[in-house]
Amino acid sequence: MITDIAVMQQTAGNLRSGGKRIAVVPTMGALHDGHVALIRAARQNADVVVTTVFVNPTQFGRGEDFERYPRDLPKDVALAAAAGTDYVFAPTAAEMYPQGYSTDVDVRGVSGILEGHVRPGHFRGVATVVLKLLNITKPHIAVFGQKDAQQVVVIRHLMQDLNLDVALVVVPIIREPDGLALSSRNVYLSAAERAQAPVLFRALGRAREMIGSGERSAERIVGAMGTMIQSASPVVIDYISIADAETLEEQAECRAGRPLLVSLAVRFGTTRLIDNIQITPP
Amino acid sequence: MITDIAVMQQTAGNLRSGGKRIAVVPTMGALHDGHVALIRAARQNADVVVTTVFVNPTQFGRGEDFERYPRDLPKDVALAAAAGTDYVFAPTAAEMYPQGYSTDVDVRGVSGILEGHVRPGHFRGVATVVLKLLNITKPHIAVFGQKDAQQVVVIRHLMQDLNLDVALVVVPIIREPDGLALSSRNVYLSAAERAQAPVLFRALGRAREMIGSGERSAERIVGAMGTMIQSASPVVIDYISIADAETLEEQAECRAGRPLLVSLAVRFGTTRLIDNIQITPP
Repeated sequence: MITDIAVMQQTAGNLRSGGKRIAVVPTMGALHDGHVALIRAARQNADVVVTTVFVNPTQFGRGEDFERYPRDLPKDVALAAAAGTDYVFAPTAAEMYPQGYSTDVDVRGVSGILEGHVRPGHFRGVATVVLKLLNITKPHIAVFGQKDAQQVVVIRHLMQDLNLDVALVVVPIIREPDGLALSSRNVYLSAAERAQAPVLFRALGRAREMIGSGERSAERIVGAMGTMIQSASPVVIDYISIADAETLEEQAECRAGRPLLVSLAVRFGTTRLIDNIQITPP
Repeated sequence: MITDIAVMQQTAGNLRSGGKRIAVVPTMGALHDGHVALIRAARQNADVVVTTVFVNPTQFGRGEDFERYPRDLPKDVALAAAAGTDYVFAPTAAEMYPQGYSTDVDVRGVSGILEGHVRPGHFRGVATVVLKLLNITKPHIAVFGQKDAQQVVVIRHLMQDLNLDVALVVVPIIREPDGLALSSRNVYLSAAERAQAPVLFRALGRAREMIGSGERSAERIVGAMGTMIQSASPVVIDYISIADAETLEEQAECRAGRPLLVSLAVRFGTTRLIDNIQITPP
């Protein structure tokens, strides 16, 4: 495990000079089978896999779960290695944001809607730390999960706009047998909430069915999903969105052939879960 | 000359893979002997010199001189080559900022004072375009002029904060025989203004003398400089500053051993000139 930025950067530089292709898997730790899928994808696409473990304070808002976010570095290191990681890079916050740190990276537009609307500043924190991690680990390939769909859109934008010479690999969501998307935050759920949580994936499935059978009104689809979720459990719905999959612009009408991102964020007690599917209306 | 980002990036990647050390000299063109000094410094520090020529629209404010900024690409290419440039990279604005572009890089604090106070958004534009140019040209070394002293501070911050693995080389100001700092904007000066403009360097020299002979009050030094400049010509002084050379914090007192940046911005008619010297009080 490497904790020092200069050591990681030099290691990556030496690997590159030696002709090795590097893939990076940026994580906040608390690794689960979703992360394992990312590391395996990295393994398939590169000679060397760097998994970063960093619970980035700047992407958490006030009152969010930065303090209680699950941390178990020894377990993460073991899991990462077993999945095919060559180097775990796990810096401290003081290493990443030393005294006097003062630079922000802002991907305007897509950062202010959906998750970014509910969590102001979140994607500024994400974009900035991802750029730093890319500069430190010098990858040819960066691997992210479709679970954080908007994060993928923000990072794709970041990479294009800043001319980063890094290929983006996006790995599909891994789910529990009952459909719940794997998340490090699932551990927060009570037994009752855990039993209710699969309604999110069922609601996404309902959207797929409705669009598949010709429904074109986003309002009616979102309404049906909301009813389904509310009737299954006492939750707070932050949003249910049907948006253009690339620009994340909200769509009133599901047009044939246009790839859509159907996404949602729902709070079960103090636990906030997100999920999504992509659908192209026939 | 290369105008295409992908071509420049691939060229730089190939040079790196071949073990070559790359130095980049970012310019807005209108090259003069100050730029020649930058290119020569690059030449001394690297195997391959890339000079970029790009009049970056995002670092100009409303009412500034973006439209009339001097442009002569064929002449710049010839001068750059003669000074030791291997590749000139001269993209269009549409290549750098295509439809949908939406990412900003902001070095807070040092971007909002002095030049940044008079020219809001200027250093956001500078930081963003410099980061893009570094990502495109993949240098080991980036060469900037001390003429734009605050720009150097902003870029040093940017490089540190975002963990860019690039060494910063700063080249001293080149001056006309009468002391006027070389600038692409000197061509705007009328004959009368050109005759008056060396007062800026004389005023900086006055600050050096006063500090050297024991004056410690920034207010008295700035006052003497202002009087000297105002009495020599009918100008508007945007600022005269005595600041910590590293943080750019204004200093009330010139403390012994503390490196200071004495800088100024003065408008001769519609032409805005900047100049500076560094002084460490004895």
